[in-house]
Amino acid sequence: MSQSLVMALAQQNFLVGDIAGNAQRIVELSRQAQQQGADLIVFSELALTGYPPEDLLLRPSLQTRVEQGLQQIAAASQDIAIVLGFPWRENGQLFNCAGFWHGGECLGRYAKQCLPSYQVFDEHRYFSVGDQPCVIDWRGHKLALTVCEDIWHKQPVAQAAAAGADLVLNINASPFHQGKHSERVNLLASHARRHNLSLLYVNQVGGQDELVFDGASFAISATGEPVLQLPAYAEALGLVRWQQGQLSALTASAEAHTDTLGSLYQALVCGVRDYVEKNRFPGVLLGLSGGIDSALTLAIAVDALGAERVKAVMMPFAYTSDISKADAAEQASIMGVEYSSISIEPMYNAFMQQLAGEFAGLPVDTTEQNLQARCRGVLLMALSNKSGAMVLTTSNKSESAVGYSTLYGDMAGGYCALKDVYKTQVFALAAYRNGLSPVIPQRVMERPPSAELAPDQKDEDNLPPYTVLDAILARYIEQDLSADAIIADGFAAEDVLRVIRLVDINEYKRRQAPIGVRVSQRGFGRDRRYPVVNGWKAGI
Amino acid sequence: MSQSLVMALAQQNFLVGDIAGNAQRIVELSRQAQQQGADLIVFSELALTGYPPEDLLLRPSLQTRVEQGLQQIAAASQDIAIVLGFPWRENGQLFNCAGFWHGGECLGRYAKQCLPSYQVFDEHRYFSVGDQPCVIDWRGHKLALTVCEDIWHKQPVAQAAAAGADLVLNINASPFHQGKHSERVNLLASHARRHNLSLLYVNQVGGQDELVFDGASFAISATGEPVLQLPAYAEALGLVRWQQGQLSALTASAEAHTDTLGSLYQALVCGVRDYVEKNRFPGVLLGLSGGIDSALTLAIAVDALGAERVKAVMMPFAYTSDISKADAAEQASIMGVEYSSISIEPMYNAFMQQLAGEFAGLPVDTTEQNLQARCRGVLLMALSNKSGAMVLTTSNKSESAVGYSTLYGDMAGGYCALKDVYKTQVFALAAYRNGLSPVIPQRVMERPPSAELAPDQKDEDNLPPYTVLDAILARYIEQDLSADAIIADGFAAEDVLRVIRLVDINEYKRRQAPIGVRVSQRGFGRDRRYPVVNGWKAGI
Repeated sequence: MSQSLVMALAQQNFLVGDIAGNAQRIVELSRQAQQQGADLIVFSELALTGYPPEDLLLRPSLQTRVEQGLQQIAAASQDIAIVLGFPWRENGQLFNCAGFWHGGECLGRYAKQCLPSYQVFDEHRYFSVGDQPCVIDWRGHKLALTVCEDIWHKQPVAQAAAAGADLVLNINASPFHQGKHSERVNLLASHARRHNLSLLYVNQVGGQDELVFDGASFAISATGEPVLQLPAYAEALGLVRWQQGQLSALTASAEAHTDTLGSLYQALVCGVRDYVEKNRFPGVLLGLSGGIDSALTLAIAVDALGAERVKAVMMPFAYTSDISKADAAEQASIMGVEYSSISIEPMYNAFMQQLAGEFAGLPVDTTEQNLQARCRGVLLMALSNKSGAMVLTTSNKSESAVGYSTLYGDMAGGYCALKDVYKTQVFALAAYRNGLSPVIPQRVMERPPSAELAPDQKDEDNLPPYTVLDAILARYIEQDLSADAIIADGFAAEDVLRVIRLVDINEYKRRQAPIGVRVSQRGFGRDRRYPVVNGWKAGI
Repeated sequence: MSQSLVMALAQQNFLVGDIAGNAQRIVELSRQAQQQGADLIVFSELALTGYPPEDLLLRPSLQTRVEQGLQQIAAASQDIAIVLGFPWRENGQLFNCAGFWHGGECLGRYAKQCLPSYQVFDEHRYFSVGDQPCVIDWRGHKLALTVCEDIWHKQPVAQAAAAGADLVLNINASPFHQGKHSERVNLLASHARRHNLSLLYVNQVGGQDELVFDGASFAISATGEPVLQLPAYAEALGLVRWQQGQLSALTASAEAHTDTLGSLYQALVCGVRDYVEKNRFPGVLLGLSGGIDSALTLAIAVDALGAERVKAVMMPFAYTSDISKADAAEQASIMGVEYSSISIEPMYNAFMQQLAGEFAGLPVDTTEQNLQARCRGVLLMALSNKSGAMVLTTSNKSESAVGYSTLYGDMAGGYCALKDVYKTQVFALAAYRNGLSPVIPQRVMERPPSAELAPDQKDEDNLPPYTVLDAILARYIEQDLSADAIIADGFAAEDVLRVIRLVDINEYKRRQAPIGVRVSQRGFGRDRRYPVVNGWKAGI
């Protein structure tokens, strides 16, 4: 008869590339889980390297470093079984593996079968494809190992079931996007019911460059019922008991990770926090314009890092309204952040004077607007260089899509919190955040958006209303609809063709944009690889 | 008995995404080849879409557009056989295909078997893997189709030979890097001799974003002898006769495409020209500092576009030497380009004055140097915005590797001609170009490099000598050697560790750098995908 097992789900925020540090952390957590009575602990995909390690996987000392890390882990597995993900080279091929250690020995190693090479993933760049199930017979249980994408296909779990598995340990590095968590739970429940087996889903947590991993690991019984739910956006160690084919929770579940604005907001906070912390910036600074984008970015920054690590700078010019100045100062004061106001007039005027000869006889155009934005960018970068604080940019996905932003101006900075957030979502998130505690002045939320780069300018003078713009953008960018299909959806042909043209011709700007948190199914980053030189014509 | 065949190798510069335009061009060239007596014409890989189409391959109307293009091509194949590359969807899978049309019919379709997902390539992101040979029995000949990467492996040609092929038509989109052409010729010769068959190698030509395709298509006899060589960096239509198992040239061969500085220089010219032309910029402008990088960039720009489309701007400051001013003016005059000199003093001073409060009590550091570079960047961008001319940046691979450049300063611009060229190569290329006709003042080539951002500054005050720096960089970046291995090669540990650290921590800068011509086996671009947040430590 099989023994009962206590299993720990270890949801951790590993540092990409720090194999020695991650190995040490795995050893410490294994000891901790063992003290809590666990017989087995399960870490996430490529826990040893962090995910995604990208081209670090091509460095020749990878295998040596991995072997050193695994030796430590093997030594720590005397009294607790350890399951974790790591890259492994064999016969000249690299595999994305899950391994099972106990008593100092590796009792099984599984190579990932389904390698994602879509969206942000490039796994065929690095890994060869596995084709074997791995079911470990341990203490009377049949434990199968699978890795992340494997679970999104039928074959690997079916193969494990056919090989007699009664429990599947699925290790993941699954980045957040809106709506994904419920997909995961439904998917695992359907595997459970189809094959009458239980599953543990262990996910990485934390930000890595443009990706945010939401954690939210869970356990599913053979009837498809959730047994344990770990929190989103936090490290956690959860325990379940496995006894006579039944899973039961030994630690309390977190609140359900629903697909609400709150979850989206937390993703943005997590992305900013980890980018700043993992790169060891002392803090951040940002231009606070009195508009909604910088207001929300400031709130996210303070929620991520604390007010004392955030500085806001208002950079007024002739077109900056008094309302903007007052609202920016008010928000900075509410949030308790350091605040300065530095006029860009003298620099702008100096540039215009030096350019007077070159510009003689030429009409005013967007050049002068870009120049204002660039004076602000240079000012923020000077403050950043002097203090070490990183500049957070404040533009959003709608602007970035249509190029309604200035390269080396408001696009200057290290990280963009709202990079994958449409303007209509910016409003919704601002309202959500103010619902927790009022931090953004009401007037900022209600004024019509303006870049204030020309007298009485409003964004919607040059663009369709944001509700229309965002609806067109979501169809074109995320759903890949054609111009014809979007027009057939009831949008004006003129708007659709103009918006698509703007998206297409502004690829060059996005290519030089700072990275930022990805929260949709198609962000502007590794996710959308469009040529700059591009003869594709809108239409069908 | 088999008829003799006249075959045309069509080496063309297709526009990525312009399926209708490319189809029309294929039809025109087929007619032209037919008039020259050709029975068959061979175009390059994905000729219909241009290469690489990247995520345009994911757009739902791709197949419809491809089918429309292929209908035109089929109609044009009444009296000449047409071989070309195109993407093709079947049973929900997309394949990278070569097809053979004649008499209005498709007589064979081959799906690429070896999909590159390394370096700059992402073919697993788009394509499924083919597994069948395609040998077409036509007019008594057995013609096999293969696509690009297939030829770099043994299996596809061996499979074609086993299926009875006597001639392999290999269609390519093979980007240039130094040393690649002789590899290609040797490779095809070895296939020819191993299987006693002849091969045509047809390559795309021209620039596409960061890639430059050198063309240089060729034909190889069954004894491994080159029969016809098309030129590098130019469109061409070459003709060969195929008779009783023998290939012979009907058009003259170009000079051998050797792996010299000249070939590298031409790649840079081609990259700049096509980026500017295909994006329809009226011209370019660049900051001319009196240093060697901007001097060489100016020469490349003029060779690519003609002097009348190039403007040079000297932007002096207190640290700009008289020699620099004189040399910049002299080169502009030699090359016949429009030239202005605009001081950045007033803008720099305005920034410093507005920042005086924030900077009070803090020491002078690189902030002030970056500020100079950024005043120049903003100035050039204002000129660019007003005129429509694109800014060419002038930094090189050595600088970009160690971050010896200013984001939004000298890194501001649309395209970087020397992005993948080490400083030592910059000197060699400048000497090469002056050997054709003297365009760069001798003093520019002889002065020690200086950014002139501080009094009496020399690059080598802050960095190891460029010969040492570049040797370390090439080992770390292109050969993936570890710090220990580079030290073992005889470099000072202090230099090696410092250089590697600089490369690692400056990934964030490169991520926002303009794209530029790739000419090495590992450029900074799609080619090298490193995380910004990165805990990898130098050492083994």
